[in-house]
Amino acid sequence: MAPDLKGVRYKKVSLQSKDVHMANDKAGREEKKGLSAKKESSFSDWYTQLVERTDFVDYTSVSGCIAFKPNAYFAWEQVQKATDLLFKQAGIQNVYFPMLIPEHLLNKEKEHVKGFSPEVAWVTHTGSSKLEERLAIRPTSETVMYERFAKWIRSWRDLPMRYNQWNSVLRWEFKHPTPLLRTREFLWNEGHTVFATREEEEAERDQVLGIYKKVLEEVLALPGVMGKKTDSEKFAGAEASYSIEHLIPDGWAVQGPDFHVDGQKFSKVFDIMFIDKEGKKEYAYQNTFAVSTRELGVMLAVHGDDKGLVLPPAAARVQAVIVPIYNDGNKELVIKHAKELEARLAKTVRVYLDSRETYSPGWKFNEWEMNGTPVRIEIGERDIKEGKAVLVRRDTGAKESVEAVHAGERTEGLLEDIRRSLYAKAKKMLEDNTHNVDSYDELKKLIKGKGGFVQAGWCGSEECESKVKEEIGAKITNMPFDAQHLAKGRKCIACGSAAKYIANFARSY
Amino acid sequence: MAPDLKGVRYKKVSLQSKDVHMANDKAGREEKKGLSAKKESSFSDWYTQLVERTDFVDYTSVSGCIAFKPNAYFAWEQVQKATDLLFKQAGIQNVYFPMLIPEHLLNKEKEHVKGFSPEVAWVTHTGSSKLEERLAIRPTSETVMYERFAKWIRSWRDLPMRYNQWNSVLRWEFKHPTPLLRTREFLWNEGHTVFATREEEEAERDQVLGIYKKVLEEVLALPGVMGKKTDSEKFAGAEASYSIEHLIPDGWAVQGPDFHVDGQKFSKVFDIMFIDKEGKKEYAYQNTFAVSTRELGVMLAVHGDDKGLVLPPAAARVQAVIVPIYNDGNKELVIKHAKELEARLAKTVRVYLDSRETYSPGWKFNEWEMNGTPVRIEIGERDIKEGKAVLVRRDTGAKESVEAVHAGERTEGLLEDIRRSLYAKAKKMLEDNTHNVDSYDELKKLIKGKGGFVQAGWCGSEECESKVKEEIGAKITNMPFDAQHLAKGRKCIACGSAAKYIANFARSY
Repeated sequence: MAPDLKGVRYKKVSLQSKDVHMANDKAGREEKKGLSAKKESSFSDWYTQLVERTDFVDYTSVSGCIAFKPNAYFAWEQVQKATDLLFKQAGIQNVYFPMLIPEHLLNKEKEHVKGFSPEVAWVTHTGSSKLEERLAIRPTSETVMYERFAKWIRSWRDLPMRYNQWNSVLRWEFKHPTPLLRTREFLWNEGHTVFATREEEEAERDQVLGIYKKVLEEVLALPGVMGKKTDSEKFAGAEASYSIEHLIPDGWAVQGPDFHVDGQKFSKVFDIMFIDKEGKKEYAYQNTFAVSTRELGVMLAVHGDDKGLVLPPAAARVQAVIVPIYNDGNKELVIKHAKELEARLAKTVRVYLDSRETYSPGWKFNEWEMNGTPVRIEIGERDIKEGKAVLVRRDTGAKESVEAVHAGERTEGLLEDIRRSLYAKAKKMLEDNTHNVDSYDELKKLIKGKGGFVQAGWCGSEECESKVKEEIGAKITNMPFDAQHLAKGRKCIACGSAAKYIANFARSY
Repeated sequence: MAPDLKGVRYKKVSLQSKDVHMANDKAGREEKKGLSAKKESSFSDWYTQLVERTDFVDYTSVSGCIAFKPNAYFAWEQVQKATDLLFKQAGIQNVYFPMLIPEHLLNKEKEHVKGFSPEVAWVTHTGSSKLEERLAIRPTSETVMYERFAKWIRSWRDLPMRYNQWNSVLRWEFKHPTPLLRTREFLWNEGHTVFATREEEEAERDQVLGIYKKVLEEVLALPGVMGKKTDSEKFAGAEASYSIEHLIPDGWAVQGPDFHVDGQKFSKVFDIMFIDKEGKKEYAYQNTFAVSTRELGVMLAVHGDDKGLVLPPAAARVQAVIVPIYNDGNKELVIKHAKELEARLAKTVRVYLDSRETYSPGWKFNEWEMNGTPVRIEIGERDIKEGKAVLVRRDTGAKESVEAVHAGERTEGLLEDIRRSLYAKAKKMLEDNTHNVDSYDELKKLIKGKGGFVQAGWCGSEECESKVKEEIGAKITNMPFDAQHLAKGRKCIACGSAAKYIANFARSY
């Protein structure tokens, strides 16, 4: 993966930092409150307070659907930009298809419709007229796209055809909705690619999962576990599914980006055929893949703390805030230096000078902290006299006094430190909460206790998978690529026969 | 408007030209056909053939909804990027709200719902359950957003709040759909801004219309007529609407970007109030504004010719294509030089070397021409010996032989020439088809004849406006800002009383 995301991560990415518009800063709200719930002891209340009290997302009057405020949408734009850049470099092109799917099309692939129809929102009327055929709001776009693909593809010269779209989808789930982590409408990319050969189709998997992994690490500072889904957990209509699975601090797993190998399953239903070099008509091979705004929920859950949001620098609309500390006597001097500092930093980071007059520095510290801004820069008369400025990290609270002339480079360095350290901390949390067990009781104890990923041998039967699900409440999130070598000589955790795989069991959102 | 869009227009804008993936080039299709209809004599057939035979958009199995192929979506991304850059520099931030709107919310503002309800697609069921309240797919998002705005805004400190979202909307129009120009689902931006004072609200109009004008000119090479809409043509729920109106070669007008001053109309219905500096509770002032994928239809219609698409350089995924001309004897030499040329050009333009072996140069010329690629570069053995390459403009067909070492700068120069000349040509077409008349018969003759904008005096009464609409079939597209000084001393074209305005009458899509 040659391309570097540094440009997306730290440079000004279409945002002129000096123009960051902060008027809607919640400052006027009398009811502004900090978080009272503790992440460690009451994660779910903590997450709810995080959503309700910080400036990120909000509920709406549509049940299960949220509003993305500027800080949240910016973070998503960063994920999108990085992914899109790498997709384009890989030769994947963007397209856009309709949001509505006629019922007969959705019904074409049996497993696919079975998987999605319970969650589909149906349009039955337009204006005051009843439609002759119901239209589904896309829960995913295979069917509406592939009907066209069949017309667009004629010969081997048209392949590979690697398309992607950025859009929103709707799945009317009936489980308890959780902002970002489980919403009925979410934003995502959906990649849909078509190949002439099985080999090319399969080679794409590592490329795309590699892109997702890189984006999650560099933009959101999130680790994950890459592996294959079981047959019962795979995408409706796919031959095989692969995923990156996250762990959040309540010990539950959250599925991240996924990749589905469809083989010829859809091409046979939708007649996606091509004439090969020998003049023979063949069915094409297809893949699909996606990353969604659910990642922002994982980011909130993993990095946040008892003071509020902790945003990874690449996802933060404001990466560094300058808070001037002055009184009536030295105001002019302090503001002048603060502006110089801002101009210096603006060359490389997204910086905002908070010179609002109606708030005290302490009030401002608190607000920026709560909203997760990675670096705070304090500058007062004493600092100026010494030619210094004070940098404070959001993630650790560590303070350091630096030469004002070098504040730009130091902030850049700090931002990279913060990303690495958030990632390392998240990775450690993931590792500390991954347990390798050989007994059913141990599996049960862990899952019923603090959760996490419990790695165990599995014979590969759906029966054993269901047994664990029903008795313990854990599903197989995936079979991690990097743990499969441990399967040799192990027994299935449920039935005791020889293990074919190492599976990660977890409770999952 | 200080910021320059040159970066968006010509630089590599996230696309690595060497990786432009051209596999799906329609090459394998036996049925590939040129255009037979002539733009001049049968515009509507010509437009249909343009859509059906070039690689831009396609119909889908959802009536009135189209698929955007890579070339079309790229053009839209360019419009989006340029607009978004200027919005962000102006302090406008992106958000995202749900696509569904509960019926009671949509019904809150009477004029608004009256304007949109005939076109709304209604979700009545999810899975197999009937919803208690119907949900509208957004035809526009005022109602779902403003219910939240009322909660987010508390004091003058929260204002101005200038939000925008990029999304798709659905309006189930029953008129004959035309790809891009009139589709039921389209992509757009919707800006929603809130101010404390009428003055600030009004000042935004020229800023935003200026941004749209700049983007249309620089990215799509499209001129337009800026002016105020009449009361009967304004946005449902607004106090006043403004628009940029285009003219397409069939003599019909197409409404481009628009800007709506809502005053306190929505804020009073949705209770969007703020406490001012004196502690008094006041209703806020609001604006909304949008540009949509309809612009791509205008671009196709205005610039295209009898050979196919003519893409303005900033909107073209491939700006320059290199076609090597070789035989078995000199293939290696020619390809080597073509690659050098590609590398040189790739620094500044989106270039693609078409080295596909199964097609002749002539076949390639034809295909790239039909798909609107701005510049074609031919290189053969004779050119190489002379250290030259041949550049061919898509818009004029003009050929020139240039030093190969300077082909990069020359191509860049040509692209800018092409943009200017497409714009100038479109502007001339607009001017040549704008007529200033003083008699009702003349108005009628022009409208019933070749169409265009017919400027005439108007007394301002809805009665006269309706009369022209009913008798002649022309509506007032807008009242051009730059023509209002001509109203003095003129008479209303319909009733003969003193004219208050100069109005542009036209048949309109």
